[in-house]
Amino acid sequence: MKRIRTIEVSAHVGERVRIAGWLHSLRDMGGISFLVMRDGWGTIQAVAETEAELAPVLEGELSVESVLSIEGLVISMPQAPGGIELHNLQIVVITAVTEAPVIPLNKPKLPANITTLLDHAVVTNRHPARQAVLRLSAGAMSAFRSILSARDFTEIQTPKIVASATESGANVFKLDYFGRDAYLAQSPQFYKQIMVGVFERVFEIGPVFRAEPHDTTRHINEYVSLDVEFGFIENHFTVMALLSDVITGILETLSEFCASELKLLRVQMPAVPEEIPHIHFSEAQELIFKRYGTDARGEPDLSPQDERWLGEWAQQEFGSDFLFITGYPMRKRPFYTHPDPDRPEYSNSFDLLFRGTELVTGGQRLHLYQDYLAALEKAHLPIEPFETYLEAFRHGMPPHGGFAIGLERLLMQLTGAPNIRLTTAFPRDLVRLTP
Amino acid sequence: MKRIRTIEVSAHVGERVRIAGWLHSLRDMGGISFLVMRDGWGTIQAVAETEAELAPVLEGELSVESVLSIEGLVISMPQAPGGIELHNLQIVVITAVTEAPVIPLNKPKLPANITTLLDHAVVTNRHPARQAVLRLSAGAMSAFRSILSARDFTEIQTPKIVASATESGANVFKLDYFGRDAYLAQSPQFYKQIMVGVFERVFEIGPVFRAEPHDTTRHINEYVSLDVEFGFIENHFTVMALLSDVITGILETLSEFCASELKLLRVQMPAVPEEIPHIHFSEAQELIFKRYGTDARGEPDLSPQDERWLGEWAQQEFGSDFLFITGYPMRKRPFYTHPDPDRPEYSNSFDLLFRGTELVTGGQRLHLYQDYLAALEKAHLPIEPFETYLEAFRHGMPPHGGFAIGLERLLMQLTGAPNIRLTTAFPRDLVRLTP
Repeated sequence: MKRIRTIEVSAHVGERVRIAGWLHSLRDMGGISFLVMRDGWGTIQAVAETEAELAPVLEGELSVESVLSIEGLVISMPQAPGGIELHNLQIVVITAVTEAPVIPLNKPKLPANITTLLDHAVVTNRHPARQAVLRLSAGAMSAFRSILSARDFTEIQTPKIVASATESGANVFKLDYFGRDAYLAQSPQFYKQIMVGVFERVFEIGPVFRAEPHDTTRHINEYVSLDVEFGFIENHFTVMALLSDVITGILETLSEFCASELKLLRVQMPAVPEEIPHIHFSEAQELIFKRYGTDARGEPDLSPQDERWLGEWAQQEFGSDFLFITGYPMRKRPFYTHPDPDRPEYSNSFDLLFRGTELVTGGQRLHLYQDYLAALEKAHLPIEPFETYLEAFRHGMPPHGGFAIGLERLLMQLTGAPNIRLTTAFPRDLVRLTP
Repeated sequence: MKRIRTIEVSAHVGERVRIAGWLHSLRDMGGISFLVMRDGWGTIQAVAETEAELAPVLEGELSVESVLSIEGLVISMPQAPGGIELHNLQIVVITAVTEAPVIPLNKPKLPANITTLLDHAVVTNRHPARQAVLRLSAGAMSAFRSILSARDFTEIQTPKIVASATESGANVFKLDYFGRDAYLAQSPQFYKQIMVGVFERVFEIGPVFRAEPHDTTRHINEYVSLDVEFGFIENHFTVMALLSDVITGILETLSEFCASELKLLRVQMPAVPEEIPHIHFSEAQELIFKRYGTDARGEPDLSPQDERWLGEWAQQEFGSDFLFITGYPMRKRPFYTHPDPDRPEYSNSFDLLFRGTELVTGGQRLHLYQDYLAALEKAHLPIEPFETYLEAFRHGMPPHGGFAIGLERLLMQLTGAPNIRLTTAFPRDLVRLTP
């Protein structure tokens, strides 16, 4: 009999079907045994009313996570989870397991010990709550790609092994490239800009590598970056408008296609107003001073506390979980950042705060060759490592800009995860290289 | 006036429109000048009939690749490329360029010198023939993803920094990970298998890294791998059936959505029969002996010449550009390969030949913990580096298998590119780390 998936069973009430998957739980209720079976899409309850039906499980002294095939009659049963059950079972053991997993995979709550969860991720990722987070991750990637493809963006894949550090010499992983030094790309920044000269509108989903020696709940050293870059923009507000559409689109897609995952994780979907409010960096500092009494005017950056205050203000003032801060001072932004033409000490860049924490950085980039030369000189950076990058600007680049969303950061803030390591299947941090 | 794209102009005959893009070519025909403008989607001809119209270009002594905005009246003109032209121009210079690019971007043929093409890829990728290859690459990724998503596969992103080499100790790039040795993943093999335990059906599009010191036209050291793995298979024939669907789907999608690119590159689309023929490794060797007189029976692998002969045979016998070779000897396959239950010296694995060259490798994997222990022992491999991988098998894995398509290899064979470096935007090889 052809196997069907758990989610397809409810369409077959009154028929015999065959399912296959993992023995998620097994309860003996005195003569009657309840087996919950899990496959890649959900769970279903099977009921063994005789010892003979359960014999393959009993004889093998099988533990949960054994892989079984179960043929049975589909019965409508309002009190069963999902409203259906399998009866009159024929069980075939596909893979026998006799050892219990390190944490129970069939209890609704995950145990709090993150080290156990991560050390045994190859198995703990099977827990429905872990599955749900990873499905949201897949859903967010898929939504990101659909939204941009619909706007005629072209997907690119750029090299991860590079000859020199992207934006600064610090925080890059060094590797041995056939006897030469090479580095892992911190971001596809330069390549995505160059590709604006080819396709105008590009996006990339790929790994980025940061050798930051931080051991915090918000840092991992390899993460997935959702990168966008496009040409013929007016200024950073063109970029912010696209980012608003992308964020709105991702959240709508998740609401529609990952409803059960969001429910299981008790995610409160954020409020995205028709237009995400924005405030200039200098006004944000004024506002913090007036409203909270802390005078950080003149500081070149916002502190985490500043960001929380601004998030609170956006929530109260606009009912928005999102807030754009525009015009960060040039001296805190990378050399390719485009200045504000009217106030050149400020930049045409932005951060997007989500619930009071930075989620996305973006902005307009320089597009004129001579401006790059001046910017490198001002930043006391040599020209040589940037030569092929600069070549693109010698041959005509339009005004352009873009942004990068950290996939794990997005998931962390959306799901309220206590640690960013829990938003990816196999995190990499200062000490963690396995699994 | 709002800018429209070149591909949208034909819908506006008789109206004034504004386009923007790169000055692709400029010809002065004695009083009348023809400007071909290129944007991210195509080209259009603009005609300046007075010197005044062309003044911004002349005064700036602008070269091709200057970025311009041109407003003009859309005229139907059968003899013009695309059947339309812009007249009565108002030209605004966005980015002035005065230096000609290193190769002409407006001649149909690419110059043959590959070193020049690659050294200056940041600009040469703008050539329509280069754009076309890169668009096919994006199209293939998109098709791969759609086909698998429609079959309920979940997209994953797995770590590229790993603690030990995936399949063998050789040919891996070593990096400094906070003072420890780490490596770049040669493939997502172990992770995609583990994730079958979570989602049953997974795919990944991502970079893989091979430190192979080969300087050939068929090798690059970083490439994009289209990876698939799924559970509850019968054997490798289940995997081959999915791969056939994926290959057919990719080719159909490209035919439909990249028709102009395929035409420009003069690609002859391959013939995929309803069912791709297959032949067992041992029969393939017999066939070569009988048909071509070369006796390689007993050899553990096929030579490139063997593959060409088999491709020729598949073409003549079945009218197929594709041929599956099944059952490669176990001793040439990695330790996780599942043996043929009836002939354990042969494996449940396959290669897919495309026009006589290997394009895809895949097969069924071991799924029982004890089989892994035996396989590692037989291969004289230690258990320790594989411990977390093996943990997945201790806790129940179904029969599973998968395959990996090299994106650049697919494009090389599809487009007949003379060198695999020409199928990606920024190749990495023994000596090339920039651009």
